Amino acid sequence: MFQTVLKEVVDGTEGGIASLLMDLEGITVDSYSKSDAPFDINIIGAEFSVVLKSIQRAAQMLEAGDAAEVAIQAAKVTTLIRVVGNNYFIAFSLRPDGNLGKARYMLRTRAPLLLKELL
Amino acid sequence: MFQTVLKEVVDGTEGGIASLLMDLEGITVDSYSKSDAPFDINIIGAEFSVVLKSIQRAAQMLEAGDAAEVAIQAAKVTTLIRVVGNNYFIAFSLRPDGNLGKARYMLRTRAPLLLKELL
Repeated sequence: MFQTVLKEVVDGTEGGIASLLMDLEGITVDSYSKSDAPFDINIIGAEFSVVLKSIQRAAQMLEAGDAAEVAIQAAKVTTLIRVVGNNYFIAFSLRPDGNLGKARYMLRTRAPLLLKELL
Repeated sequence: MFQTVLKEVVDGTEGGIASLLMDLEGITVDSYSKSDAPFDINIIGAEFSVVLKSIQRAAQMLEAGDAAEVAIQAAKVTTLIRVVGNNYFIAFSLRPDGNLGKARYMLRTRAPLLLKELL
């Protein structure tokens, strides 16, 4: 079921490359990559699990409320991260010219489905 | 001149709250807040300078190219961060219901003006 959702997110978004579901300790639950993906989404997820924790600490200190979504645009890849429940997140990498609006919509609507399975 | 640009970014974006120009060590160059801002943008900037450095390390390790833009959406505030040159960034906080597309446009078009003054 995780695989179905992760694949749907990538294949349903123009420029989608890969997606994964991971816990905040950096352990992958499941992942999906297009066959021509130029990198390993598991490594991206592990790196950004550290970033996400520092963002959550900052948000707590600032009393900004929970950080729900983070978008990181680098020269070669855009990565969108959405928190799923208290302990998991979904990361989705797409090409810099991909459809970021669609990507955000996909994660926002699919996160509740993943959460239901994780509980 | 910095003040003019920072004010223009906030006042020209629906939902804009505050903006600042800071170096990657967390030292503020200049900042602007609407009079009813619910927080101190300098504290937000200092927290996120740490986050930005960890993102840049991750992007380097992943060979993703330089991280140009980061958007962090929390429950009470959205913060958009754009790197300016090698040593500075501009942070812009807006309400969660603010116009994020306009905010991104503002930072993308104003960053070169700020950079020219910083060199």
